[in-house]
Amino acid sequence: MIVSDTPSFGRVVQEAMPPLLLLFVWDVVVTIAYFTFAPKLLEIELPMTLFGTALALVLGFRDNSAYARWWEARSLWGLMINASRSLARQAITLIDDDPVKGKALSREIVLRQIAYVHALRCVLRGQDPLPEITPFLKADEIEELTGTKNIPNALLNTSARHLAHANGLTDSFRRVRIESTFVDIANAQGGMERIKRTPLPMHYRFLPQLFTRIFCVLLPIAIVSDLGILTPLGSTLVGLMFIAALQIGDDLKDPFSNTVHDVPMSAMCKTVEIDLLQTLGESAPPALVPERGVLM
Amino acid sequence: MIVSDTPSFGRVVQEAMPPLLLLFVWDVVVTIAYFTFAPKLLEIELPMTLFGTALALVLGFRDNSAYARWWEARSLWGLMINASRSLARQAITLIDDDPVKGKALSREIVLRQIAYVHALRCVLRGQDPLPEITPFLKADEIEELTGTKNIPNALLNTSARHLAHANGLTDSFRRVRIESTFVDIANAQGGMERIKRTPLPMHYRFLPQLFTRIFCVLLPIAIVSDLGILTPLGSTLVGLMFIAALQIGDDLKDPFSNTVHDVPMSAMCKTVEIDLLQTLGESAPPALVPERGVLM
Amino acid sequence: MIVSDTPSFGRVVQEAMPPLLLLFVWDVVVTIAYFTFAPKLLEIELPMTLFGTALALVLGFRDNSAYARWWEARSLWGLMINASRSLARQAITLIDDDPVKGKALSREIVLRQIAYVHALRCVLRGQDPLPEITPFLKADEIEELTGTKNIPNALLNTSARHLAHANGLTDSFRRVRIESTFVDIANAQGGMERIKRTPLPMHYRFLPQLFTRIFCVLLPIAIVSDLGILTPLGSTLVGLMFIAALQIGDDLKDPFSNTVHDVPMSAMCKTVEIDLLQTLGESAPPALVPERGVLM
Amino acid sequence: MIVSDTPSFGRVVQEAMPPLLLLFVWDVVVTIAYFTFAPKLLEIELPMTLFGTALALVLGFRDNSAYARWWEARSLWGLMINASRSLARQAITLIDDDPVKGKALSREIVLRQIAYVHALRCVLRGQDPLPEITPFLKADEIEELTGTKNIPNALLNTSARHLAHANGLTDSFRRVRIESTFVDIANAQGGMERIKRTPLPMHYRFLPQLFTRIFCVLLPIAIVSDLGILTPLGSTLVGLMFIAALQIGDDLKDPFSNTVHDVPMSAMCKTVEIDLLQTLGESAPPALVPERGVLM
Amino acid sequence: MIVSDTPSFGRVVQEAMPPLLLLFVWDVVVTIAYFTFAPKLLEIELPMTLFGTALALVLGFRDNSAYARWWEARSLWGLMINASRSLARQAITLIDDDPVKGKALSREIVLRQIAYVHALRCVLRGQDPLPEITPFLKADEIEELTGTKNIPNALLNTSARHLAHANGLTDSFRRVRIESTFVDIANAQGGMERIKRTPLPMHYRFLPQLFTRIFCVLLPIAIVSDLGILTPLGSTLVGLMFIAALQIGDDLKDPFSNTVHDVPMSAMCKTVEIDLLQTLGESAPPALVPERGVLM
Repeated sequence: MIVSDTPSFGRVVQEAMPPLLLLFVWDVVVTIAYFTFAPKLLEIELPMTLFGTALALVLGFRDNSAYARWWEARSLWGLMINASRSLARQAITLIDDDPVKGKALSREIVLRQIAYVHALRCVLRGQDPLPEITPFLKADEIEELTGTKNIPNALLNTSARHLAHANGLTDSFRRVRIESTFVDIANAQGGMERIKRTPLPMHYRFLPQLFTRIFCVLLPIAIVSDLGILTPLGSTLVGLMFIAALQIGDDLKDPFSNTVHDVPMSAMCKTVEIDLLQTLGESAPPALVPERGVLM
Repeated sequence: MIVSDTPSFGRVVQEAMPPLLLLFVWDVVVTIAYFTFAPKLLEIELPMTLFGTALALVLGFRDNSAYARWWEARSLWGLMINASRSLARQAITLIDDDPVKGKALSREIVLRQIAYVHALRCVLRGQDPLPEITPFLKADEIEELTGTKNIPNALLNTSARHLAHANGLTDSFRRVRIESTFVDIANAQGGMERIKRTPLPMHYRFLPQLFTRIFCVLLPIAIVSDLGILTPLGSTLVGLMFIAALQIGDDLKDPFSNTVHDVPMSAMCKTVEIDLLQTLGESAPPALVPERGVLM
Repeated sequence: MIVSDTPSFGRVVQEAMPPLLLLFVWDVVVTIAYFTFAPKLLEIELPMTLFGTALALVLGFRDNSAYARWWEARSLWGLMINASRSLARQAITLIDDDPVKGKALSREIVLRQIAYVHALRCVLRGQDPLPEITPFLKADEIEELTGTKNIPNALLNTSARHLAHANGLTDSFRRVRIESTFVDIANAQGGMERIKRTPLPMHYRFLPQLFTRIFCVLLPIAIVSDLGILTPLGSTLVGLMFIAALQIGDDLKDPFSNTVHDVPMSAMCKTVEIDLLQTLGESAPPALVPERGVLM
Repeated sequence: MIVSDTPSFGRVVQEAMPPLLLLFVWDVVVTIAYFTFAPKLLEIELPMTLFGTALALVLGFRDNSAYARWWEARSLWGLMINASRSLARQAITLIDDDPVKGKALSREIVLRQIAYVHALRCVLRGQDPLPEITPFLKADEIEELTGTKNIPNALLNTSARHLAHANGLTDSFRRVRIESTFVDIANAQGGMERIKRTPLPMHYRFLPQLFTRIFCVLLPIAIVSDLGILTPLGSTLVGLMFIAALQIGDDLKDPFSNTVHDVPMSAMCKTVEIDLLQTLGESAPPALVPERGVLM
Repeated sequence: MIVSDTPSFGRVVQEAMPPLLLLFVWDVVVTIAYFTFAPKLLEIELPMTLFGTALALVLGFRDNSAYARWWEARSLWGLMINASRSLARQAITLIDDDPVKGKALSREIVLRQIAYVHALRCVLRGQDPLPEITPFLKADEIEELTGTKNIPNALLNTSARHLAHANGLTDSFRRVRIESTFVDIANAQGGMERIKRTPLPMHYRFLPQLFTRIFCVLLPIAIVSDLGILTPLGSTLVGLMFIAALQIGDDLKDPFSNTVHDVPMSAMCKTVEIDLLQTLGESAPPALVPERGVLM
């Protein structure tokens, strides 16, 4: 996620330049052709106005849908952070702090929750979670996880199972309260998988791109007789507007896709790690900082 | 659901071709008629602009509603997956793992939940659920289900009834927690039935289609005097834009209708099957993969 | 609710005909007047475009609000169906199935819930609920209900009171779980009453109609000099578009108003009746089927 | 809230007349000036079209936000009605109906809830709640409330405190269920205070008004050369459209502001009073009816 | 937050003046240049109409998103107020009011919750929370907090831990109910951190500004041949409209950014302080009042 307060024109230019340059070259070609061959130009204002209005509407709706997906993805991670903190608090206060078994069980559940968020992040990014979670789990637990298809879910189940065997350290009511937090965690995970696995419908993914390109190709033809030599400037400007609207949707539509526009999962996992370790009263690593304006 | 990363132009063409071809032929006819009879053409720009703007707005709103239905359908299935995982976790950890009765009851409830999602999928697709759920249930339970009108609901009730008779294996608090998960499952099922049984209001279903067709018929007449010989190209292009906007709504408005634009229920049921079997510690079948870019 | 897959043109025509005919006659009058008196016509394109665009936007927002009301009404009935099923399941499994008292209490609560949904339907439709609920309740309970202003709420309270006196058949935790289901039911009922008793704000109800009519009256005057003899056709077509957009909002804005566009409450009550009777293991009536494409 | 089925043209005229009249007079002045001085008029169509489109969009978005506020306010009152009914049911069924202490405590909690909704209504309307709640509370409780800044919240706390001291009449589980209903009530109250205390952002409150006025002033100048003597008619009509759109937002943006467009809090408080008294088995006052089409 | 009922034209002018003045000067320059050099002007109406329409749509969508963020931020603070009141009520009524230990624990939890909201406010505003919370906590607790990265979360954990050690003053059910309120508080806090740490996507932040500026630069060139000497007036007016739409989004997009458009966190913290102290039966400070129309 890009968090810098000032726009990095370098980045903007880098992203928008290739299509813009192409567009500009085409605009120049059309203008030169117009002045060279001086064709009896067709008036295509009506269809272009209709086309442009309809396209603006379609891009607007799509940007809205894409933004909603991105914001829902971020909100689900927010819920995950909240639920992780609540789980840690509950693991410590709803399990009797028996000096031997109680404290060990609480600590183990809290560390496993740190492992859980790292595992989930890796799964959503298509990476192998095992190396990332090794520091937080016992060796035999890591071993058991090999071959498991849904590692985060398995971690959750393990915590629940250990809790079920914690005879005398808690009671049914408190276990049920912790189980409800597991349900919150499972729901947040399921929501993220839903966004990850369900792309925008096909027509929303490809047609806006197609129509924007066609629009940009036709635009200089439509305005060259009015704008004359200034056509490349005017056409590129309006084209940039539509390309930018297209770009917004493209950047946001897949919020777990490992781009700079991504939801910053590494930073959020680190936040969970810090908060949970401090809840245990242990020393915590520093928070992640943006690199060149980008928080991963 | 179409999941391929690149647009399958074959599919796009296949779907959009018939109306597009028809539109193109009509555009050619209008153009030829114009150059043949050279009628004193009427200027219908104002009504066409108004008509087009209003139509774009109507299609935009309808696409939005249809997308919301589709996304809600997908989200409800997401909730079903989450609730299924939570139910499995709870069946294992909130029922005492008494080696004889406890483990058997847990396993039975988890398997019945797998049967449940398969049954729900079949009901939503208008198929007979019994063959699909046979592998997960005992023979006498299958028999009892014959004649039942709402099989998924009956399965839920059966699990709840067995739990009620599990004397000594659980207590009221834990039973109530599992019952709350049954409520989540029932709510997700009810939401899907609502979407399945309540089509978009009549006017949203038929009028956009009617108006788009009328618009496409009138469009070449409106622009032929301006565009001349290029009319078929321009008219087809703008028409395609509106037809595509219409198509998006049509594809998404019935998310349980057995088309390639469907919510991928078979794949999601398989996900539940895998996750729940692995939670039981049993071997799981492979996940469903897309066939030619389509996940069913 | 209209559920037929193909549009019943009969119905569409029947509904849209009167305004359309009126519109057409007026368009013809304007056209004849134009050719008869050949007035030096005014150019009212700019205000008509502005007027039309603003009107389209207003109708679009209103349709959206009306659709949201209709869908919320439908969703609340969906929640009612879900909660009814959950209540039945809980009445059977969270009350001990003591052969004498327990089974009788469970059955009584389930039957009263069937009565409840029928009573709620009647109240929302402004009908007397007593005849409809008599088959499901004891005679003395019916008698007690006479004079009660909020019969559904009274039924809910009765079930809760009986449960409170079911000494030894349940415990506090299970009673509290059932009470939470009562809360869900009360919330769904309250939501429906809210929609029933709170019409769209006055300006949303009357002004769109007024403006659409004015627009349709002015439209032929605006285009007759361009379209000439084709004015009635063009004007009627564009007018139909706006009238249809108006109609959509009018049909959906009062979802409990006993029209064919209504939420199908009779069918949903029958669904509850069937599911709850089958949950009790008793024989169930057939489901309601659409009559001439309309489900009541 | 205006609930009459037919528009009261009297009211509409009364509200819209002053600005409309002003507008009409200005339109006439512009028209007369045009025909008197016959100035070489400027063509301001382009900026007016842009201005009008942008203004329509801004008004549309604002109307949407204002309507959402109004509907949320109404929904929160709906939740309050539901929670009040649930609290009454719980006070009667979750407290043992011990003939001496139990029944008295239940009745007292129910009556205090009636006082609560009346107090909340008065606070939201900026009125003194004490006179309204006196009939439902004991004299000494009224006395204690003097000087309390948040009277509804204090009433809630009193009920909770009495419940905490009801030794032997209830148990922890049932108390916790009633406490959860208190939480629902507190959440609804907090939501209403939020809407009351947080007006729409400044720019949404003042700029639409300013721009609509400027637009109405410029409109006749823009169209007088086209419409000639009909300018006052055309300009007033289009102006009315924009003024109406502005009015909708203004009416709805403050749903607790003691106008005829208000959420009908008096009627809803009476509904709570009736339902809760009937739940107690006591006689209830009649419901509030609309006066001249307005329900307060 | 600006709460004055009448627009402070001083403030409006102060904010809008610099860009407006710049715009006006540019408009004058263009007009003078037009009359001086009388260039053969280009007709750039089509691209300007397209550009303006698309820009209006983009600004509309962005304003909507920014308003949604602002309203969500306000709603989360509303939830925090509600949860704080509920926590206070629960701390007093769900902990036995044992004269020695019980009352002290209740009071300590309520005071710590006051400290919590003040701490959260400071963190969101980037200020040091320790000085603000000192009055409500014991000296040794303040000391422990030094070095903690997430102070509000630590306060919550402390309350939960004290509750866990309150042997005999409460029971598991009541503790679990209070823990659920802690979860509500943690969720509200997490939601605020999400809004604080996740700015609008880059393209939404910078591009609308860029495009609005370009639009305002081009506008007078587009209309000077039509409007002549009135160009500065017309262009500034339309420009103001777009600049205002841009400003709305800019003001609302960061609701925790210490500007006058902020969510009024100081006032809301004071509300919590008053309500909670009065719940304890202690004397409360006066509420915060707006200073020159602004509530902080």
